[in-house]
Amino acid sequence: MGIAKKILLVVLDGASDRPIGGRTPLQMAETPNLDLIARGGINGIMDPIAPGIRPGSDVAHLALLGYDPYEVYTGRGPLEAAGVGIRLKEGDVAFRCNFATMKDGIIVDRRAGRIRDTAELAKAIQEGVNLDAELIFKKSTGHRAAMVLRGEGLSPHVTASDPKHDHMHARKVDALRPEAERTANILNEFIEQAEKILETHPLNIERKRIGKPPANVILIRGAGAVQKIETFSEKYGLKGAVIAATGLVIGIGRMYELDYIETEGATGGVDSNIDAKVKNAIGALEDHDFVLLNIKGADESGHDGLIEEKIQFIGKIDKALGPIIGLKDMLVVVTPDHSTPIAVRDHSADPVPVAITGPGVRVDNVRAYDEISAATGGLSRIRSMDLMPMLMDLIDHTKKFGA
Amino acid sequence: MGIAKKILLVVLDGASDRPIGGRTPLQMAETPNLDLIARGGINGIMDPIAPGIRPGSDVAHLALLGYDPYEVYTGRGPLEAAGVGIRLKEGDVAFRCNFATMKDGIIVDRRAGRIRDTAELAKAIQEGVNLDAELIFKKSTGHRAAMVLRGEGLSPHVTASDPKHDHMHARKVDALRPEAERTANILNEFIEQAEKILETHPLNIERKRIGKPPANVILIRGAGAVQKIETFSEKYGLKGAVIAATGLVIGIGRMYELDYIETEGATGGVDSNIDAKVKNAIGALEDHDFVLLNIKGADESGHDGLIEEKIQFIGKIDKALGPIIGLKDMLVVVTPDHSTPIAVRDHSADPVPVAITGPGVRVDNVRAYDEISAATGGLSRIRSMDLMPMLMDLIDHTKKFGA
Repeated sequence: MGIAKKILLVVLDGASDRPIGGRTPLQMAETPNLDLIARGGINGIMDPIAPGIRPGSDVAHLALLGYDPYEVYTGRGPLEAAGVGIRLKEGDVAFRCNFATMKDGIIVDRRAGRIRDTAELAKAIQEGVNLDAELIFKKSTGHRAAMVLRGEGLSPHVTASDPKHDHMHARKVDALRPEAERTANILNEFIEQAEKILETHPLNIERKRIGKPPANVILIRGAGAVQKIETFSEKYGLKGAVIAATGLVIGIGRMYELDYIETEGATGGVDSNIDAKVKNAIGALEDHDFVLLNIKGADESGHDGLIEEKIQFIGKIDKALGPIIGLKDMLVVVTPDHSTPIAVRDHSADPVPVAITGPGVRVDNVRAYDEISAATGGLSRIRSMDLMPMLMDLIDHTKKFGA
Repeated sequence: MGIAKKILLVVLDGASDRPIGGRTPLQMAETPNLDLIARGGINGIMDPIAPGIRPGSDVAHLALLGYDPYEVYTGRGPLEAAGVGIRLKEGDVAFRCNFATMKDGIIVDRRAGRIRDTAELAKAIQEGVNLDAELIFKKSTGHRAAMVLRGEGLSPHVTASDPKHDHMHARKVDALRPEAERTANILNEFIEQAEKILETHPLNIERKRIGKPPANVILIRGAGAVQKIETFSEKYGLKGAVIAATGLVIGIGRMYELDYIETEGATGGVDSNIDAKVKNAIGALEDHDFVLLNIKGADESGHDGLIEEKIQFIGKIDKALGPIIGLKDMLVVVTPDHSTPIAVRDHSADPVPVAITGPGVRVDNVRAYDEISAATGGLSRIRSMDLMPMLMDLIDHTKKFGA
């Protein structure tokens, strides 16, 4: 009995699947802790967006946090920018960028030899480029960067300069609507100025000298306008935190002003230090009302089509989740954000199993944590967008409709 | 494992029901093949439209094909016209018609003695009538015909001339909105001209001579405007076919440009040659990506309130479905379009059992194909409109939302 006060939302990124030889990885893996969670609460299946809609991790996490992706998702640029710590404002237009290698107008390497140390290059661009709008340019992971244009009358309705494949011409940015002409011009001006700065930058001269491809051009894609942002605490009155290793999830967290708590050794892969992430999550619950813990590795195994690795990693997650079993006075919710079937090697629309445990939560007859067992549970079939309102009700944070 | 490439959608028209003496016809019938299908895949219950909405076969099939009936359904006229092979254009207004018998202004037989050979009469009307709009008039099955008006400024907002019961006055067509005045005038002009042509037609003079009621008037109903049509292949990128005996389902197939494949001996009744239809469906899958196979008889038994006949016919369907059990590399989906309970003798809103089998499909613990077993399955409760998006995801034909 009693009422929970806090929420731990554990996202088993991409863990749910389709059967391989009759059973799914969640059915095949050793999951005593996940099964305990399933047995101790209420279960169901959950459409990340709606039946048949195949979600990206970005829109799937937005829905899990109760933000309607059809309203708030405007492309990857804003999430990438938020992820590198840029504080976005309504009206900003944000982009994802690559440091790339161009030779005679042809993009010969979209990742500039998977360059990693781009801090100095990004700084040189931020300081050297001069545009008809405010520019914020920051390095992201590896060869990636994030860019924000700020000012009056900017538009996200522009084409990408990124040709998406190597050995193609870099493209000019074009306006997709008349009102985007100015933004397209600014971006083309940016590309030109950045190219001059990069071409003569000592770091690139050194790269050429030692036979590495120079990062001599910036490719732009993923334009998105920043809308009015209702922060997590404004929306729910809760202090939230996010623990994750992937830029996208961190970006979503930062955009809605959940505290990002870094974990040493968290890689987003199957080699990740998930014990440390779990410990961090439990620690974060001491001074937060809501913690989203994203564990990524199973998604990666799904994308790579590695069935054994996926099963093993689910087992590893299960062990790591041991310490959350005894948590008191809080809702513990376990769900993948979406399915990443081995057979598809990409996300699918298949619903995911969701389990909710904690004080006051109804307990159904589900005995195991998997896609088939969950469907017989007390939640029946819901959608990710339903989850936060339900959790808010379970922690008694919901206003009555009517009297 | 693997991913299916094609879809066979078997529609057990009206087969689902309510219990009679505790069990439904699907529970009472001998259905080893349907049970095998249920056991081999994922099951659930499905609302044809939404809980409590009682659907016609037309809107039920539109929803099964993923067309939102609330958007695309504009009345029976367009479906009837498409069903007789009229190629509709946006802006057309289409009607269902009856050949009927009128005496002194009273409709004495709305079906003109269930006249069958109306080809010559229809031809005489098509050739003899002259209106302020293009006219397409074609015979349909039995005493029925389809009519299309084509041209600028036509409106479907007109009343029916059909009084719907015998021994009533034929009605004038009235406009329901000011902009429909012209259409109403055209229709009244049509009725008058057609009456003159029919009254003196040799076939009617002969009918009167041998004591049969002459088909001397056309009754009009079911006005519907034709909207922009997104064909099945435009919507899904799949080549589709429909195998059915009822005009309505054929009409829907033709409207969305699925290939209609005729089956010898298919009647739409319990005497239908369903073995031939199943064979035809399997053959059609060789050069189509999607085949809708509608088997109608159980619906007819439901409308007639014949419990034993319904149970027997379900058993007959089950036997006929034998050859689809072994199909490889494809999704086989079995569902009624709606329930037609014996006790109601009409369609009801009760959800239907749906089973999906094929490569990659999750397998739940359902052991039998019926309304109650299905509800414990891995799909939980969905809607017919969800089905096509889910199937598209299972054949890997779905774009990702987000990244």
